[in-house]
Amino acid sequence: MKILIPIIFFIFCLLFSSSSSSQTSMFEFCVANYTAPYSPEGYSCKSPEKVTIDDFVFSGLNLPSNTNNLAKTGFRTVFVSDLAGLNGQGLSLARVDYKAGGVVPIHTHAGASETLLVLEGNLTVGFISSDNTVFLKTLNPGDGIVFPQGLLHFHVNQGNASAVAIVNYNSPNPTFQYVALSLFSSDLASRLVTAITFINPSEVRRLKALLGGSG
Amino acid sequence: MKILIPIIFFIFCLLFSSSSSSQTSMFEFCVANYTAPYSPEGYSCKSPEKVTIDDFVFSGLNLPSNTNNLAKTGFRTVFVSDLAGLNGQGLSLARVDYKAGGVVPIHTHAGASETLLVLEGNLTVGFISSDNTVFLKTLNPGDGIVFPQGLLHFHVNQGNASAVAIVNYNSPNPTFQYVALSLFSSDLASRLVTAITFINPSEVRRLKALLGGSG
Amino acid sequence: MKILIPIIFFIFCLLFSSSSSSQTSMFEFCVANYTAPYSPEGYSCKSPEKVTIDDFVFSGLNLPSNTNNLAKTGFRTVFVSDLAGLNGQGLSLARVDYKAGGVVPIHTHAGASETLLVLEGNLTVGFISSDNTVFLKTLNPGDGIVFPQGLLHFHVNQGNASAVAIVNYNSPNPTFQYVALSLFSSDLASRLVTAITFINPSEVRRLKALLGGSG
Amino acid sequence: MKILIPIIFFIFCLLFSSSSSSQTSMFEFCVANYTAPYSPEGYSCKSPEKVTIDDFVFSGLNLPSNTNNLAKTGFRTVFVSDLAGLNGQGLSLARVDYKAGGVVPIHTHAGASETLLVLEGNLTVGFISSDNTVFLKTLNPGDGIVFPQGLLHFHVNQGNASAVAIVNYNSPNPTFQYVALSLFSSDLASRLVTAITFINPSEVRRLKALLGGSG
Amino acid sequence: MKILIPIIFFIFCLLFSSSSSSQTSMFEFCVANYTAPYSPEGYSCKSPEKVTIDDFVFSGLNLPSNTNNLAKTGFRTVFVSDLAGLNGQGLSLARVDYKAGGVVPIHTHAGASETLLVLEGNLTVGFISSDNTVFLKTLNPGDGIVFPQGLLHFHVNQGNASAVAIVNYNSPNPTFQYVALSLFSSDLASRLVTAITFINPSEVRRLKALLGGSG
Amino acid sequence: MKILIPIIFFIFCLLFSSSSSSQTSMFEFCVANYTAPYSPEGYSCKSPEKVTIDDFVFSGLNLPSNTNNLAKTGFRTVFVSDLAGLNGQGLSLARVDYKAGGVVPIHTHAGASETLLVLEGNLTVGFISSDNTVFLKTLNPGDGIVFPQGLLHFHVNQGNASAVAIVNYNSPNPTFQYVALSLFSSDLASRLVTAITFINPSEVRRLKALLGGSG
Repeated sequence: MKILIPIIFFIFCLLFSSSSSSQTSMFEFCVANYTAPYSPEGYSCKSPEKVTIDDFVFSGLNLPSNTNNLAKTGFRTVFVSDLAGLNGQGLSLARVDYKAGGVVPIHTHAGASETLLVLEGNLTVGFISSDNTVFLKTLNPGDGIVFPQGLLHFHVNQGNASAVAIVNYNSPNPTFQYVALSLFSSDLASRLVTAITFINPSEVRRLKALLGGSG
Repeated sequence: MKILIPIIFFIFCLLFSSSSSSQTSMFEFCVANYTAPYSPEGYSCKSPEKVTIDDFVFSGLNLPSNTNNLAKTGFRTVFVSDLAGLNGQGLSLARVDYKAGGVVPIHTHAGASETLLVLEGNLTVGFISSDNTVFLKTLNPGDGIVFPQGLLHFHVNQGNASAVAIVNYNSPNPTFQYVALSLFSSDLASRLVTAITFINPSEVRRLKALLGGSG
Repeated sequence: MKILIPIIFFIFCLLFSSSSSSQTSMFEFCVANYTAPYSPEGYSCKSPEKVTIDDFVFSGLNLPSNTNNLAKTGFRTVFVSDLAGLNGQGLSLARVDYKAGGVVPIHTHAGASETLLVLEGNLTVGFISSDNTVFLKTLNPGDGIVFPQGLLHFHVNQGNASAVAIVNYNSPNPTFQYVALSLFSSDLASRLVTAITFINPSEVRRLKALLGGSG
Repeated sequence: MKILIPIIFFIFCLLFSSSSSSQTSMFEFCVANYTAPYSPEGYSCKSPEKVTIDDFVFSGLNLPSNTNNLAKTGFRTVFVSDLAGLNGQGLSLARVDYKAGGVVPIHTHAGASETLLVLEGNLTVGFISSDNTVFLKTLNPGDGIVFPQGLLHFHVNQGNASAVAIVNYNSPNPTFQYVALSLFSSDLASRLVTAITFINPSEVRRLKALLGGSG
Repeated sequence: MKILIPIIFFIFCLLFSSSSSSQTSMFEFCVANYTAPYSPEGYSCKSPEKVTIDDFVFSGLNLPSNTNNLAKTGFRTVFVSDLAGLNGQGLSLARVDYKAGGVVPIHTHAGASETLLVLEGNLTVGFISSDNTVFLKTLNPGDGIVFPQGLLHFHVNQGNASAVAIVNYNSPNPTFQYVALSLFSSDLASRLVTAITFINPSEVRRLKALLGGSG
Repeated sequence: MKILIPIIFFIFCLLFSSSSSSQTSMFEFCVANYTAPYSPEGYSCKSPEKVTIDDFVFSGLNLPSNTNNLAKTGFRTVFVSDLAGLNGQGLSLARVDYKAGGVVPIHTHAGASETLLVLEGNLTVGFISSDNTVFLKTLNPGDGIVFPQGLLHFHVNQGNASAVAIVNYNSPNPTFQYVALSLFSSDLASRLVTAITFINPSEVRRLKALLGGSG
């Protein structure tokens, strides 16, 4: 039998060889090549022979993130810019840490739905629909929520203890657009901010000063 | 020859008859049946034999819309809820009228890009990217802009005359989420509004009173 | 308070900084880089720091287009090849001018639905479904129609005055395939044209001569 | 050991039972329920417990189709209207028979690409791009072509023998729009046909008579 | 001023009222109506006025799942069949518990990518590409992996302690197809199993007995 | 009249010229440029002026493929790696030959549905759903089946004669993942194979030796 095995093996190698060229597995996954052109659909693909397990593995989400900031929250993200193997796979995640009083201010993700799962502490989370209905809930560990795609939403730690959550997106690159930063950290002229939000000019100026905006 | 034509015609009728059932053209278009179940992708389809040209035709976009309101703007929409033939076709449009000082406050469309074309007057339009860069331009008749999908944007008529624009969306049902209405026309508790926007409580209360919110 | 502001600002800058690299906003929009490779989904993206408002703004749609041609119609297009910011945004538009008797001959767009809005004059527009039903309407200013994706359609100015329309597509690059040009401006052999259309050979030759075809 | 097996089996049954309800496999496939509402994406799904292998199996493509018609061609289709299991699967196929001189006249499929494989005889096939370039080839048995989505194309059997081909689509419901039938089997007014195609009125009338159109 | 507020409010209510009907927000989210027809794209939508926050909130992922089974693993799923608000949102999640020696046998998800994040213990995880390359890693708390869409993958707890992971999918309904159950819990005839896997008939019979299959 | 034709023709050339640049037809099809970057959506596009009919035409599917191997089957594929014109078109095909006793072992295609049409001989084909139901049928010439996307399936020639089938996919690049090769031709450690499949270690070693695996 021993003598036959190499022959069988040789024959077997022909089993799935076909008239096709050898490129057929190239789109099975598309690990990001950060230095090549990218398109609306994502990065160009790294050459398959350079792909390793490390392109798919991340670490560090057991560690708290830095919450020493105004919002008292911090993120550890695993987005396609952090992990090349997410390219073209349509999902990503992050760990969020909240000190007591920490907040993720109201924001949207242009092209992604989100789930949030509370690991520690409790969080008041909410989203608002386009008819201005508020969907609000305080979540405890093991609780979670789905934020529908594109709607304004927020997280607030109203408790006295810190909190931790895992958030997931159905996009490898969920962009965050924070309302407060868009309006008050930017150089959008204060009179325009008032016109498009109805907020008093003096309050706009105060917030621009607070959040580093100009104009 | 005349005698042959009916025969040829009869034969021709068999040309494209096949072994298929007669249902093959059903998905060519899917005019909305507003009374049947609907799914994330749109309404169920009206039975093809009930479809007429009127399911595809709209009118009235030559007429100004009502601008007697706080924002001094008005819309005439042609969305899938207005025109059944838009169902499944992936686009829609509207006419917008602006009095002098009229504004379309800052808002997003969850799943749609937009183009705006100025027909009369001039409009200052802008959008903000997620790194808080402002893209701003004053447009004259014949000018226009594309608003990238999901980003906060606004229109302001800073001129002394009224203005008219045509807006188009790559969705038959572009939802509008206005930041000011989400925050100040809703029943979201004022202290939460402050927490997630950094706006002073007194200003939040003023805006809630102005815009009809509670909480 | 004044002395605190820079500190607060410094702290705030950390608010939304995360463990992510700085590439997360790259796919928020994808302005076309016309000189890089392009894929079925569109052009490669211009480097974000080179993007300006001018990549998103177009002009000139207030001006009539040239209608001194056989069809007595003219187009001013705002497609992705004209406006880089349309890349990946899924929509585009054009202005169409029609002299009295002007026509946009029967054609299809391979992957796009279309809306047409009449601004001036009146237009007879129609499309044909695959069971050879004709959907036909004469439109006046402010009227419009949706042409379902992929179906043959046409516009005819049967009035005595010129007409103007705005057309919109749910693709940044709607290709136009005109039946008459495909058959009679090409080099498709006349006998093949007859075989696949049933049009008399002499008429095929006349149309090839008229429209510049050969074969 | 024998006595242990039922116990192990009982335990194993719990292996993949979870806290989820029992509905999780419902979208694995969606066999068409022809009597329920349908949407732009396809038919509603038949209840899973009523699905059998016969929903996925077709037959008869070894048999010639009827070619006794003006075009001398015939189809046996396996579209979603013929085979419920194709619903939501994104593909379909057909067998085409051509007598000597048989033709599949110039046509488009609104939302589908196509491959054609010649089994018997030879076929001249072609498509035309939107810049009026003709892509033409005569195919022998074992040869084939891909017709890009949405473009006008045709098949002609110029040989003296009959031919057979298998065509495949990346849609479960490829609609066929034949140019000649749209123009000449419909009730589109002859003067409009002339306006939008440049074909002489007398030829339009001849073709309307031949192909059963009116107007 | 006080007397004016109701008037302003009344006027403001007209701000965003348009000529559109009131149905425009219907597709903003599509909470599953489990009793209505469903399509390849998901369930029909519950009527918006019946939607509450509870359609979007889940709980219990802090609790271990039952691991008293052959595989020594258990799942708590939050799929669309568990949480109606996930319908149409394109994502879902689950908690997985593993006793020492626990395993999630090799399996695929037909239409979903997956991320796995280890919360407790350590897990050896792997996937195999179509050229039979194994991508393997042992993960500790805070580590994770992305499993590319459609590829065979598995989790094994090779440690001496129990482990916990959170898994996320970019589908609201990720179906699980376990190789061992497909082959050995089904009624696929043993000789066919041998033919399509090369596994010895006696081993096939042993596994069928172990896993409850027949044939 | 003759003297007018050149003038009319000249004028006509302006008919469809517009204010657009000349790039508008670039995405009509996207023939693969194998040497440029590729993305999750496919290859970059070859420059249109280099595209010829030969980019769309394939041949040789009338010829049997090599079945001198362990599985007694052979493939002739027409995938995007074989035919550049399939890029972005969403479909592909292959011819399969089976000697008596030939088998296409159980496998999945990560992102593609499949149809199989028997041309010669008979084939027993089957797929298994995620609740371990087997859908099985023996097909004769002219019969066929649709394999739902992502599910495990197989073909076996149980007859005494050779068989031939045509298979089609709704992807230009259907990857094949064979269960037996993933487990036994790879270097996945035998004890892990046993853990994730329940197959006896001795049988795993036998299969690794047979199929060329290690570990």
